[in-house]
Amino acid sequence: MTSRDVIAGVDLGGTKIYSLIATVDGDVLGSDRCMTEAAGGPAVVVQRIAESVRRALDAAGSSIDAISGVGISSPGPCDPSRGLVTDAPNLPGFHNIPLTKLVSEALDVPAVLENDANAAAYGEYRFGAGKGFDDLLFITLGTGIGGGIIIDGRVYAGASGAAGEVGHLILKEDGPPCNCGSRGCLEALSSGPAMAREASEALASGRAPGLARIVGEDVPTMEQVYEAARQGDAACREVIQRGGRYLGLALVGLLDVFNPRALILGGGLTNLRDLYIDPAIEIARRGAFPQVIADVTIRTAELGDAAGALGAAALLPERLPR
Amino acid sequence: MTSRDVIAGVDLGGTKIYSLIATVDGDVLGSDRCMTEAAGGPAVVVQRIAESVRRALDAAGSSIDAISGVGISSPGPCDPSRGLVTDAPNLPGFHNIPLTKLVSEALDVPAVLENDANAAAYGEYRFGAGKGFDDLLFITLGTGIGGGIIIDGRVYAGASGAAGEVGHLILKEDGPPCNCGSRGCLEALSSGPAMAREASEALASGRAPGLARIVGEDVPTMEQVYEAARQGDAACREVIQRGGRYLGLALVGLLDVFNPRALILGGGLTNLRDLYIDPAIEIARRGAFPQVIADVTIRTAELGDAAGALGAAALLPERLPR
Repeated sequence: MTSRDVIAGVDLGGTKIYSLIATVDGDVLGSDRCMTEAAGGPAVVVQRIAESVRRALDAAGSSIDAISGVGISSPGPCDPSRGLVTDAPNLPGFHNIPLTKLVSEALDVPAVLENDANAAAYGEYRFGAGKGFDDLLFITLGTGIGGGIIIDGRVYAGASGAAGEVGHLILKEDGPPCNCGSRGCLEALSSGPAMAREASEALASGRAPGLARIVGEDVPTMEQVYEAARQGDAACREVIQRGGRYLGLALVGLLDVFNPRALILGGGLTNLRDLYIDPAIEIARRGAFPQVIADVTIRTAELGDAAGALGAAALLPERLPR
Repeated sequence: MTSRDVIAGVDLGGTKIYSLIATVDGDVLGSDRCMTEAAGGPAVVVQRIAESVRRALDAAGSSIDAISGVGISSPGPCDPSRGLVTDAPNLPGFHNIPLTKLVSEALDVPAVLENDANAAAYGEYRFGAGKGFDDLLFITLGTGIGGGIIIDGRVYAGASGAAGEVGHLILKEDGPPCNCGSRGCLEALSSGPAMAREASEALASGRAPGLARIVGEDVPTMEQVYEAARQGDAACREVIQRGGRYLGLALVGLLDVFNPRALILGGGLTNLRDLYIDPAIEIARRGAFPQVIADVTIRTAELGDAAGALGAAALLPERLPR
């Protein structure tokens, strides 16, 4: 294969590394998953990334000569133009680490990076649910709530690379405190941990007997809260529906502000289709401007956890110095 | 003067038309203000626009030969690519009216159009408070709350030309009803009419004696509410400060989502500096991500009501078919 035949992407997480080799059309030819071993610090993590890429190349029946470089999806704030991970709370020692330079040296090919939400947005735009929609808003719903913005077919990263951070729209002035320091942010109302915490409170006060049957004395996970809700626990249903309602209110504002051609919802919470995603979309459809709703396609993401690595890989050609 | 020396812009409003002739650097050489006579319908309005442009040219000591075309800032939804005013509630008969074609025929020069908030955003970007900031969010605060987005130095209009409609971010689920059909939108909490309505309620229940001294039995205007607040009326101060607080909460979310290089606040309510604008900016600075705040310049608009006409005029070169 020539150097233009395949692309290589890495999704670097605080716990796991996911590397893949794909065709230029986004078909995954081979992949590798391994532990990040973040505690070892940047030098260890860089070595793990390089080994993972080599294993993915092996799995794809390819070799390092077949790729023109590696695209890295990086957690937390980063500076793509300088290839720096500026700060990654889940990666000890990663403060202003020149990750692209280090990975490039380890593999002897160029590397570029982009933050995980932006990379996933670009992945869905190029290969997934957002294909063909040049102005696109991608929202990831899970432990946190974040997002990425594609404008005119390109990642819009903003002045600090932070654009798309939709999780901190304030929806309830006196709402629950958020990690960001504000109260009543979308993330503090509609993320998995936010809903699990509310269900815990219902559990503690004896209002969630269905959940109690599932978890006993344990702290419930979001999966267990959803399971209890599906089995009919009224308090758990209410918790999830409230989370979906706030998500819907946030979507109204975001759709009116961005007027995107597509809104793509990704992340683990998209599994909560009936009680969370569908009602949120319904609120958005009723609340946003009719013309905005008429012109937007709303879909759930298609690439799952491959979105970040695929998006980062696809960014390589335009980001590499010529 | 050659055709590249001066630019011509028109701000079409429901009540007034404002035309200006300016240098390519945005210095206004001559202008004209006249009544729209909207009740006369599109044909009359087009004639008024043409006459106004001719008077502005006279005032500038210039002539129609000196301009390469006219840029029009249009109220309400429009379709710049087809030159259509799709719907303008304040302009009777303006439904899918090919305004650029009609004005172009009346003046025998090309015309382009853009919606007023986008045109004003572009004006401030090219000639005003946003000069040099390629990623910019412009918010206009007055009777309504709207805005425009500049990304990479260009108007980002979105799929329907509605992008930048920040007035319908929902901040209070059970808040006052908004014209858009939702409740607790920014516009329903922090616009001039929203605050004047709240002050009216305080007046009616006898809680605003300072305002009562100013307006007697009349319905108060926002200017009178502000005057009463400055003279010490506690209820009026509280109304304006609450409006400013919700504006601040909206700015937190907007800054985190857009991560712009500049945030420009325009419109009549920017006169309420001490009780409204400054507290809102302070809330935004405390609540948004530190890096986002570090990288943004927040300013009030500089061009006043010339922003729309100047912005529309400046859009002409890139919008005209070559």
